[in-house]
Amino acid sequence: MSSYSKLIESSNKNNSILCIGLDSETKKIPEFLGSGLDALLRFNYSIIDATHDLVSSYKINFAFYEQYGIEGIEVMRKTFGYIPADIIKIADCKRGDIGNTSAAYASACYEYFGADAVTIHPYMGLDSVQPFLEFHDKFVFILARTSNNSADDFQNLICEGEPLYKHVVRKSLEWGGKEKIGFVVGATRPDELEQVRNIAPERVFLIPGIGAQGGDLKATLKANSSGPAIINVSRGIIYASDKNDYIDTIRKKALNYREEINAIIREF
Amino acid sequence: MSSYSKLIESSNKNNSILCIGLDSETKKIPEFLGSGLDALLRFNYSIIDATHDLVSSYKINFAFYEQYGIEGIEVMRKTFGYIPADIIKIADCKRGDIGNTSAAYASACYEYFGADAVTIHPYMGLDSVQPFLEFHDKFVFILARTSNNSADDFQNLICEGEPLYKHVVRKSLEWGGKEKIGFVVGATRPDELEQVRNIAPERVFLIPGIGAQGGDLKATLKANSSGPAIINVSRGIIYASDKNDYIDTIRKKALNYREEINAIIREF
Repeated sequence: MSSYSKLIESSNKNNSILCIGLDSETKKIPEFLGSGLDALLRFNYSIIDATHDLVSSYKINFAFYEQYGIEGIEVMRKTFGYIPADIIKIADCKRGDIGNTSAAYASACYEYFGADAVTIHPYMGLDSVQPFLEFHDKFVFILARTSNNSADDFQNLICEGEPLYKHVVRKSLEWGGKEKIGFVVGATRPDELEQVRNIAPERVFLIPGIGAQGGDLKATLKANSSGPAIINVSRGIIYASDKNDYIDTIRKKALNYREEINAIIREF
Repeated sequence: MSSYSKLIESSNKNNSILCIGLDSETKKIPEFLGSGLDALLRFNYSIIDATHDLVSSYKINFAFYEQYGIEGIEVMRKTFGYIPADIIKIADCKRGDIGNTSAAYASACYEYFGADAVTIHPYMGLDSVQPFLEFHDKFVFILARTSNNSADDFQNLICEGEPLYKHVVRKSLEWGGKEKIGFVVGATRPDELEQVRNIAPERVFLIPGIGAQGGDLKATLKANSSGPAIINVSRGIIYASDKNDYIDTIRKKALNYREEINAIIREF
């Protein structure tokens, strides 16, 4: 089954467009779990156990595992392997390089880790994205308008009449259909999310920025205008408690986000 | 010593601005070495043994190691560790993400692998680069005009009067001095390399695209106009022979590149 179809099925089955970002770091997990990488792995397993019926997807941020070297990579690999097969696994690694190099990155993400989808930098253009598209059943999210403050530095430059991020979206719409290519569009600027939605009404948006980054859920969902989406929350869920019953708090948080999202969507 | 000072010293000591890109893949190394990751590591060691007096730097392309998973990462780590301390180690990983994520990538590159410099995607702006700059003695190369065919897709969009890649250069010049920030500028478009050199006369350019990618060495060096540079050759050197005496061929290739570069520079 293609990643795209799987996403639709997991969203329907769990009645959820929530994604939990596993931005796990040894220093931030509940102290009683321990401080090593074994503890980090147990932490991830416990989150997946407690939430896999509440989400459409998990997003694994490569940086947080790469910082621990080989042992961190091993935790990441096992975490990918632990996610149920019917839930989407997003490799949030923001890669992008010349063709033969992107091909090696694609192999790492899709084959070694078994990811269903990958996030990609658009700056180097089509031939840097193409090797990811050649994995037929897989999916890519191209960075369009990111959620960070400095996104303005280049993404909002006016290029030939409109901001760069719109060019990125328009151009990459030509590279593949809705079942292959979606966009990363941050929740921190709902007005710009709406602009992207107008250009790409059918594309899946991976929307970070809710929770620790301060994005407004209601404004975001309104701007998204019922387009297919994945609402990612990372720190706002996984670090919700450092108590012994942290896992109950995490489940409640995830449940609340799912219900809040669904309630807002029903209002429209 | 800062990476910047070390680069100047290694270039002077070895009378070389050549960088060898260790784009090593198990399928491409001489067959008689074997096909496993041990063979890949021996291949890298033999190249470093044979060429470390001829180069200013080595560039390690993360993708080629990541595709083999944990064992590949281990080969990469050992390769970083084997490069003599007075030669610059460039982590060619083209990272870039929101602040806390970039901080984790910077830690992986500089602390775990011990890289002196890192390549970075500019699309997300200053706060995605800042965590790399906070490692005081280290260096970053920001992608400006890349060497691939599709670089045109976005880098040459005319934004507020000039191509995007020039905005990237002008803006990031404000983020740090010449001892902290340089640029990746491909050899495949010498006219555009010259444009970047005019804007950033004192910055170190990491110049890929010579060798397998077909860039013209003479036109490139002319366009670079005696600015500080690192000329990278990867496949054009490391896969020069698959015979038993491959290592002599690799040394000869590296020597030839160094001499050819120096001869052209002397002509100016």
